Amino acid sequence: MEYAKWLTTAVEEARAGLAEGGVPVGAALYGADGALLGRGRNRRVQDGDPSAHAETAAFRAAGRQRSYRGTTMVTTLSPCWYCSGLVRQFGISRVVIGEAETFHGGHDWLAEHGVEIVLLNDTGCKGLMHDFIRANPELWSEDIGD
Amino acid sequence: MEYAKWLTTAVEEARAGLAEGGVPVGAALYGADGALLGRGRNRRVQDGDPSAHAETAAFRAAGRQRSYRGTTMVTTLSPCWYCSGLVRQFGISRVVIGEAETFHGGHDWLAEHGVEIVLLNDTGCKGLMHDFIRANPELWSEDIGD
Repeated sequence: MEYAKWLTTAVEEARAGLAEGGVPVGAALYGADGALLGRGRNRRVQDGDPSAHAETAAFRAAGRQRSYRGTTMVTTLSPCWYCSGLVRQFGISRVVIGEAETFHGGHDWLAEHGVEIVLLNDTGCKGLMHDFIRANPELWSEDIGD
Repeated sequence: MEYAKWLTTAVEEARAGLAEGGVPVGAALYGADGALLGRGRNRRVQDGDPSAHAETAAFRAAGRQRSYRGTTMVTTLSPCWYCSGLVRQFGISRVVIGEAETFHGGHDWLAEHGVEIVLLNDTGCKGLMHDFIRANPELWSEDIGD
């Protein structure tokens, strides 16, 4: 299934972030034709940049686009309000989410506003975040403004 | 009045963006003690970076913060959903807005969720955006994902 394959791109980013000592959330933006437009990961720790969440990093990596109609944001974790706002503002059509159990962001709100939400309930994504949050509660709280 | 003074920082950023050929929206993040934490402007054109809205640029420039309690985001223009999501997620306490006439973003939603909104209805900010949108309708549409 295509979405599961796309999720592996986001998971690769998350794992790379973990290896760098960062917050292990990864994302990728795919075009309406299935082409990879951009990929990225949370870079709070690596770059000292609190604005670099996985989804915004993938969005940034895709560069300027005239329209996001038909695009899909794939992310290992339910998007926070910041990243949900990004999706809504730019009219990204679909969000594919690895898991929403360790953190429940704004994806219900996005669904209410016409964004297609695909929740994969991925065990690997859950394990990654569960272990990270347990080992780094302060860093995680900082990352979501808790 | 402090808010009007803070707005001049955001306006300086917006005018610098205009001089660079960019989207003239500027912002600044002030701490609970009134200290300037970060300032920035939309950099879509200058950096080819669609993720750099004024508010996210100011947030980024402020670097990592443990808490945003008591902070104020000052912006020349009503924050779009992306920037409104940033404010909500990180618990920024107050948003001071130059104007919300040329663009009405998510500030009502923020008010509903407990963020203090101060709308200054500034004539200079209105003129800046009005002239820019009239001269660059395509670029403006791109910047807000229209």
